[in-house]
Amino acid sequence: MNMQELGQRAKNASRVIGKADSAQKDRCLIAIADALWSERADILAANQEDIAAGRENGLNEGLIDRLTLTESRLMGICDAVRKLVQLADPIGVIEGGTIRPNGLRIEKVRVPMGAVGIIYESRPNVTVDGATLCLKSGNAALLRGGKEAIRSNTALVAVMRNALEQSGLPADCVQLVEDTSRESAAQMMKLNGLLDLLIPRGGAGLIRSVVENATVPVIETGVGNCHVYVEKTADLDMAVRIVDNAKTNRVSVCNAAESLLVDEAIASVALPKIKNALDVHHVILYGCPKTRSILTDIQPASEDDYGREYLDYKMSVKVVSGLDEAIDHINRFGTGHSEVIVTSSLNAARRFQRDVDAAAVYVNASSRFTDGGEFGFGAEIGISTQKLHARGPMGLEALTSYKYQITGDGQIR
Amino acid sequence: MNMQELGQRAKNASRVIGKADSAQKDRCLIAIADALWSERADILAANQEDIAAGRENGLNEGLIDRLTLTESRLMGICDAVRKLVQLADPIGVIEGGTIRPNGLRIEKVRVPMGAVGIIYESRPNVTVDGATLCLKSGNAALLRGGKEAIRSNTALVAVMRNALEQSGLPADCVQLVEDTSRESAAQMMKLNGLLDLLIPRGGAGLIRSVVENATVPVIETGVGNCHVYVEKTADLDMAVRIVDNAKTNRVSVCNAAESLLVDEAIASVALPKIKNALDVHHVILYGCPKTRSILTDIQPASEDDYGREYLDYKMSVKVVSGLDEAIDHINRFGTGHSEVIVTSSLNAARRFQRDVDAAAVYVNASSRFTDGGEFGFGAEIGISTQKLHARGPMGLEALTSYKYQITGDGQIR
Repeated sequence: MNMQELGQRAKNASRVIGKADSAQKDRCLIAIADALWSERADILAANQEDIAAGRENGLNEGLIDRLTLTESRLMGICDAVRKLVQLADPIGVIEGGTIRPNGLRIEKVRVPMGAVGIIYESRPNVTVDGATLCLKSGNAALLRGGKEAIRSNTALVAVMRNALEQSGLPADCVQLVEDTSRESAAQMMKLNGLLDLLIPRGGAGLIRSVVENATVPVIETGVGNCHVYVEKTADLDMAVRIVDNAKTNRVSVCNAAESLLVDEAIASVALPKIKNALDVHHVILYGCPKTRSILTDIQPASEDDYGREYLDYKMSVKVVSGLDEAIDHINRFGTGHSEVIVTSSLNAARRFQRDVDAAAVYVNASSRFTDGGEFGFGAEIGISTQKLHARGPMGLEALTSYKYQITGDGQIR
Repeated sequence: MNMQELGQRAKNASRVIGKADSAQKDRCLIAIADALWSERADILAANQEDIAAGRENGLNEGLIDRLTLTESRLMGICDAVRKLVQLADPIGVIEGGTIRPNGLRIEKVRVPMGAVGIIYESRPNVTVDGATLCLKSGNAALLRGGKEAIRSNTALVAVMRNALEQSGLPADCVQLVEDTSRESAAQMMKLNGLLDLLIPRGGAGLIRSVVENATVPVIETGVGNCHVYVEKTADLDMAVRIVDNAKTNRVSVCNAAESLLVDEAIASVALPKIKNALDVHHVILYGCPKTRSILTDIQPASEDDYGREYLDYKMSVKVVSGLDEAIDHINRFGTGHSEVIVTSSLNAARRFQRDVDAAAVYVNASSRFTDGGEFGFGAEIGISTQKLHARGPMGLEALTSYKYQITGDGQIR
């Protein structure tokens, strides 16, 4: 099937699920969770084939790990689908309204986005996650995953389409793009009039490609060059804990810290303490000249290092003169994701939160909390680093839009 | 100055106005309104030069009219700026928040978008309108108007920059792109990292070009292929009034009706009545075969006619079998702007409002009400026909985003 046809089918299916009531959507989600579990043997077998092919093609262990489904991971996926059932349906909420002086009644009503495309890498969990978040919010999903996961994705999508039909909804509410070539992705990015939204989920290269080439509306997600700034009044033990957690709790994720800023006034005390903690995890530091005059055995940092999302046990370090330089540095090199100040000064905390231009601005907490679950959203479709539409962790509402319903009795202008 | 530098200056200025308080922004708006009026002689002289050059270059009268400033139009522009002062500042509103079980306090705070680009045609009123809406909402504006208005725009922007400086704000909060070549527009569309948002305002060609070429986030505005559907239970006098108003009140605007759908059951009575009213305004009708069996002297409609935004005294007409066909036709040919049903059936009204996929869905009122002023927003930056971020008339809030401010006492994951 060509991309235009896939897009048209997604649009058509979106018209149907867009008006499905909450109970029908929830019954469908339960059917999906049940079927994913009962069909686990076939799903895991398909996944094993993907893994074998991946090893043959020399995929590194990190990618193999992301590709791998196990019985326990599949159970986690099913549990996440069941949790979605518990969340309130975002559709149909009347957000406000007014009766105008001329008697027109105007209501603003939450509606689904329509047909949503997701382009992602070889992570089969995103297939279920993305599809079910779309279904819960009344959207049709067109999924284009990485080629290494094609067998797993085909098995997962077949199960979901079957469950949709059994629930009386069109199977085309979830479609997989079977052609995993670059061209299929490029075509998908230009389905104007068919796709209402495109979300890229993956590494910086994938996201850049979508932002540069898409003509349909896009939400940019996920790239995080996050900083921890240790201000001169910081509780140093807290600073050590937060830097250590933000850097080493999980290095491969977008809300991990990549860069450390330390006030000059406390650098000679703070830097050795922080380095001691990071040394336990063998974190490699790249420092500015002032940092290296204190931590004499670390690598020098280049300008490139300050802009780098390592996603690894590496961190750039810069000594700054104070709050102003820290804010300027972050606004220059940051990606607008998650930024942290450790301070005991109320004034520094207020200024940092006001002036740092990022989705999540933390005082005295780890950047690792930027997450739909940690924010209490119950589900997350991604973390937006743009300011249009949605910013930071995106819950179900990010997959919705609104319409105005206006009712009169013959009003004209 | 090259485009990159203009973008960087806009971004830098946005950091300053983004934290200006409401009183300072409002003082600046008053200073702008005062200065536009006191400098009116220079502004109108510059505008006269544009008009003379336009006539020399054979600009048609419609475009000359849009280009023309008069003392009374300038007074209207100044009044609109003063009205902005009265509106509530959208920035700094705490939209919600929570204290999480781990003690983290999360607040969602409304913030400016940052640096906003506006690409528009030769309408000098948009220069002031766009700039002042951006200032009120804490944004820096980078304006790229049409080449025919360059002298008027230069004069208007000089006055606004002067007023900004006198109010203690950076002049670069409002910048005009003096290079009106196609290349300057193309470069502006790719200022990722500098422009946070780009809004095209103008005709379908301009908007398509921006949607196809921009890599910065865009809000698509303004193309309106709006329908009026006269359902079989409609009050025919009301239907005539609404069709006449939606079509002829002002033909050049995006919320004017371009297409008429009439239920077969009432077509032989309704169509002649509607035609009588439209004949007064010499509206040319393009009909389907069934329509032409009733209105025998009108032109045939092609498929193209159903998708056309005439912006003229022209209208396509189609007889439909009922509500389902009307909704399908509108969802196929409409642009998601404003759609109208005239009916006395509660069920038809409910289904039409639910199932038509458009920003504004009317029951028994003219599509001409889709307008920020008519909706009570007090100001309008444009009418969005996309579902991402904003839909329908956009007030000040469409020029804002939000951030999460999270405060803890050492929380880690």
